[in-house]
Amino acid sequence: MCTEYCAISPDSDEMPAVSARLWDEDDVRSLRLMCDEVHEYGALAGVELHHSGAHGPTSETRWPAIAPSQLGSDLEPLIVPKAMEHDDIRRVQADWVSAARLASSAGFDIVYVYGGHSYLPVQFLSPFYNRRSDEYGGTLENRARFWLETLELVREAVGDDCAIAARISVEALGPAGVELDEGLAFIRLADHLVDLWDVNVGSITEWSKDSGSSRFFAEGYQLEWTGQVRDATAKPIVGVGRLTNPDRMAAIVTSGAWDLIGAARPSIADPFLPQKIEEGRYGEIRECIGSNICVAKSESGRHLGCTQNATAGEEFRRGWHPERFERAANADRDVLVVGAGPAGMECAIVLGKRGMRRVHLVEAEEDVGGAMRWIPRLPGLGEWSRLVNWRVVQLSRLRNVEVITQKLLSAADVLDYGAEIVVCATGATWATDGLSAQTHRPVAGADISAKHLLTPELVMVGEEHPPGEHVLVYDCEGYFMGAGIAEKLALDGYRVELVTPLGAIAPFCDETLEGPLLRKRLHERGVGLHTGLTIGSIDSGGAIGETDTGEHFELEADAFVLVTQRLSNEALYLELRSAAQAWTGEGVEAVYRIGDCVAPRVVADVIFDGHRLAREIDAKNPALPLPHRRERPARGLLAETSAGGVVPLEH
Amino acid sequence: MCTEYCAISPDSDEMPAVSARLWDEDDVRSLRLMCDEVHEYGALAGVELHHSGAHGPTSETRWPAIAPSQLGSDLEPLIVPKAMEHDDIRRVQADWVSAARLASSAGFDIVYVYGGHSYLPVQFLSPFYNRRSDEYGGTLENRARFWLETLELVREAVGDDCAIAARISVEALGPAGVELDEGLAFIRLADHLVDLWDVNVGSITEWSKDSGSSRFFAEGYQLEWTGQVRDATAKPIVGVGRLTNPDRMAAIVTSGAWDLIGAARPSIADPFLPQKIEEGRYGEIRECIGSNICVAKSESGRHLGCTQNATAGEEFRRGWHPERFERAANADRDVLVVGAGPAGMECAIVLGKRGMRRVHLVEAEEDVGGAMRWIPRLPGLGEWSRLVNWRVVQLSRLRNVEVITQKLLSAADVLDYGAEIVVCATGATWATDGLSAQTHRPVAGADISAKHLLTPELVMVGEEHPPGEHVLVYDCEGYFMGAGIAEKLALDGYRVELVTPLGAIAPFCDETLEGPLLRKRLHERGVGLHTGLTIGSIDSGGAIGETDTGEHFELEADAFVLVTQRLSNEALYLELRSAAQAWTGEGVEAVYRIGDCVAPRVVADVIFDGHRLAREIDAKNPALPLPHRRERPARGLLAETSAGGVVPLEH
Repeated sequence: MCTEYCAISPDSDEMPAVSARLWDEDDVRSLRLMCDEVHEYGALAGVELHHSGAHGPTSETRWPAIAPSQLGSDLEPLIVPKAMEHDDIRRVQADWVSAARLASSAGFDIVYVYGGHSYLPVQFLSPFYNRRSDEYGGTLENRARFWLETLELVREAVGDDCAIAARISVEALGPAGVELDEGLAFIRLADHLVDLWDVNVGSITEWSKDSGSSRFFAEGYQLEWTGQVRDATAKPIVGVGRLTNPDRMAAIVTSGAWDLIGAARPSIADPFLPQKIEEGRYGEIRECIGSNICVAKSESGRHLGCTQNATAGEEFRRGWHPERFERAANADRDVLVVGAGPAGMECAIVLGKRGMRRVHLVEAEEDVGGAMRWIPRLPGLGEWSRLVNWRVVQLSRLRNVEVITQKLLSAADVLDYGAEIVVCATGATWATDGLSAQTHRPVAGADISAKHLLTPELVMVGEEHPPGEHVLVYDCEGYFMGAGIAEKLALDGYRVELVTPLGAIAPFCDETLEGPLLRKRLHERGVGLHTGLTIGSIDSGGAIGETDTGEHFELEADAFVLVTQRLSNEALYLELRSAAQAWTGEGVEAVYRIGDCVAPRVVADVIFDGHRLAREIDAKNPALPLPHRRERPARGLLAETSAGGVVPLEH
Repeated sequence: MCTEYCAISPDSDEMPAVSARLWDEDDVRSLRLMCDEVHEYGALAGVELHHSGAHGPTSETRWPAIAPSQLGSDLEPLIVPKAMEHDDIRRVQADWVSAARLASSAGFDIVYVYGGHSYLPVQFLSPFYNRRSDEYGGTLENRARFWLETLELVREAVGDDCAIAARISVEALGPAGVELDEGLAFIRLADHLVDLWDVNVGSITEWSKDSGSSRFFAEGYQLEWTGQVRDATAKPIVGVGRLTNPDRMAAIVTSGAWDLIGAARPSIADPFLPQKIEEGRYGEIRECIGSNICVAKSESGRHLGCTQNATAGEEFRRGWHPERFERAANADRDVLVVGAGPAGMECAIVLGKRGMRRVHLVEAEEDVGGAMRWIPRLPGLGEWSRLVNWRVVQLSRLRNVEVITQKLLSAADVLDYGAEIVVCATGATWATDGLSAQTHRPVAGADISAKHLLTPELVMVGEEHPPGEHVLVYDCEGYFMGAGIAEKLALDGYRVELVTPLGAIAPFCDETLEGPLLRKRLHERGVGLHTGLTIGSIDSGGAIGETDTGEHFELEADAFVLVTQRLSNEALYLELRSAAQAWTGEGVEAVYRIGDCVAPRVVADVIFDGHRLAREIDAKNPALPLPHRRERPARGLLAETSAGGVVPLEH
């Protein structure tokens, strides 16, 4: 069990990103809690001691960033680092030793000199960052010197108590690091100083190729490069690559390529992954879908989230155990869940696990899954089907849950159904008139009855083929749908223009590390990319509108797909609410709604919403979430600690 | 003294932006500390009770965002809110009342129903957000109903103890709010419920027009609209508009337009603004320069900073009083500061105030100011000259500080100078070879000796005129310099192309709320804007390079200005450091460096750096900043509070 990166020095301050730190004794206290907990379960605790070098925004400490040479950060805006003097090198190495000692005293078993991505040790190693003319620059031996010396110093300091690990990106897949030959050469140079090699590819600049999304990278894709590390070392190797399949993991280890499987995202999706493998419960593994919504949600100081695992990040603050569910206080009730999309399925599963007498999950369509039935058919999103598949298996195992498809319920049907609790999970639909967040207005001439005008549902579910050869996809949302529809139609042989009022194509995909690769792929597929264009009206021959500098534009097209805004399918819920006087007669006690039917959101939040209602179905008012535990800076007077920290004096 | 916006409900959660909150009793304890402190100085404490409505990312609480109608946020990506049911309206109003009661118990004197920007009350008021067909939508009276009811409820709850204030943007200057006629009409409708009107313009979508930068808005610009509020009310009015000039403030109040002057940014630049006015110390007011670096630095959960005031945000965590300076323990030493740019000036002032025996600030050029001598001559940046002007006055008042210009010092001169402490503040210079953060390589053919190749210094200080008529400005930095040079040359009559490898023109200017207006202005001035282009080589006729999709491009131009990366002028410092064995003989005890000479940074950080060294000139090792007080989530075991919060149990 490893921490995230853990900064060793004040000039490695990544605020507003939250990272662990080992700068002083006060930091030890928090991390010791982690170590104690890890040890209680018989595991080893590791700490990724780290310095971000040229990529340190230092927004909190306001120290200058430092790097081997004064070359601007290719990652963070406006950072031109201080070229490290010899004193800086010695000080950072001393910080590493100090942090290692603090780590050892906190109880860590494995201490890293972390060089994954393009952080400081790799900046020394890489000719892209290192232009020094002293003994720390030039030849590979010189560029390796900083890292080798640091490993040696850390080993001297804590090597008797802790294993010394190094993480290295053996192939940067871009300029920001080293190529495979030098990656392997460094491993040979440092092998006597390291007890565990933690290997990956990419860099922080090319993070999209390190924490690769399933859209662009197959499970285990890093083996192409990290599978060659064995030739350079006899030490244990741990590798990553979004591995979720136990057979694949076993094959890698038995092949001798690696000794250990690293799994961050797969463990967010299923924290009990190792235990389920140990116990042979393969079918219960909730596999990461590779959407990288965890990255999008946790970056920049926001709260973690996971599409597959609604409890990710909620273990402490809401007290949700990923695998344990308490019997509901009102478990003697029947629940009708209307709509078997992601929210409805998740809610029914958790209600089932909480022991509700009977849960009926009723779906109007032939199959369960809602929009997630067809979204995985968009190019590259096949693994997203794991979301529905895992839940279908879970539902089939719950004796108190019944799934009923091809049954469209009216409000009267629902009231008459016989369940005391009703949950509406009827989803959302793409606007058919071009309504968008940008204008809050329809697009003039957007007439859905016309053959040349389509929505994502019409393309994907209705399987309607746009007339003509030239299609304009209008994306006002900026996530996967507009780009996905455009790519699909291009693959179908259409000439496609992707038009957005936003400043970039699919900007939210930058948050999921998909943006650069996605834009490249769209371009390769021949999709015309147009940003900053707001369409005002559409007719059968084209669209007209305004550029972001206020000028008129016209684009020709034979057909249009409007990916502008989704709208909740809330009619059934609102009708039920307005019929509250009829509830008593029908034995209905409560009507709730969840998921996109409340407000259209990313799937992770929809799953969370369905889970949340079921977890709190016996709360005083399940319609509103219970408060979560919050971190607050202080409640009373403040006292200063020995290390200059501040703690509340009273509680 | 007002808080920032203070959220009343969990669906008004702006994580990762840090806001005050009044959700439960635990929140009262922290805010009570503020109220007590405010009262100690005889001031009134106000709290901007707030709900962000459609613009709530709710990244922490994961509640759905809510709004009058289900129209996507025009501010935050991917938010489509829940259209509020009647229960939601009642619940939010109850939250407002609850928060007002909590505020009253915390000691606040003024309680807001905050409708500034385009937050929830204005979303109800604005036809852009409100499409309801019930009694909360349609006519102005209906759209005003939510806000009026809430004001009434809050008044009933705490009106006897607290003044009730409302903030309203009377003119949204865009779609996201109301126009002036409806703004004033609302004020008339609500006047009986309000004790203080806090008025502004713009919206959160058009924040650039609310917290206007000096580049685009003159001091007091909001009066054009908010100066008309007097016609609609007899209640006291407070207005804003980056007012720093006491005469102007007095004129506004005596004219009857407003009764009170609001000043957030001017108080960040000078927290003692009111006291200095009261005491008639007008010349000592450190005026806000309107760069909005405070916004750029504090948004998204980063730490505040200010170009003018190095102590902003450092009062508690570093213990820096903005106006008080302790005599240095080594005040018997002489200090030589080499270079009178921002860092050198600030350092010399603080050293002077700390009572050093003699401080010599020696500058090679004719005038002090460094790069800030000429940067204010870029179009729109005139008010930035306040940075140098204020410091020139300060320096002139310090008897122990002497400013010497037109004196270029060699290393030997410095050692021979007679000062025990030497501080190098020799700044930075733009690379002359096209070196950039993106490529870490020069641009081929970038030969600074050629007439057609210039840097910002050559254009602005050398006053060199690019040959020909057609100039290409190559901006690899993305802040004000590239765009500023391009605009200046366009005003000089050149045809200008602004080319950047970045995804947008001057993207960092979006952080300072200047981006949209800047791009519009550049376009209006006829500057050609080209993003995503990396220049590989330049010759006398044009530039060639690669687009971000990997394609070849060519652009013709007669001349080129390279705004690619700055490099520290560190030669003098490094020579002095390498001559350390000669120090003793010359009586030199220490040689430090500050500002851009360490690493080129935004001016706020350069000022901070100079200030920091002087504040810590008598520390054990002034070269490294002393640790600041840090907030840490927990040091020991955790205990739960009554309100579900978590506090450290021990310290």
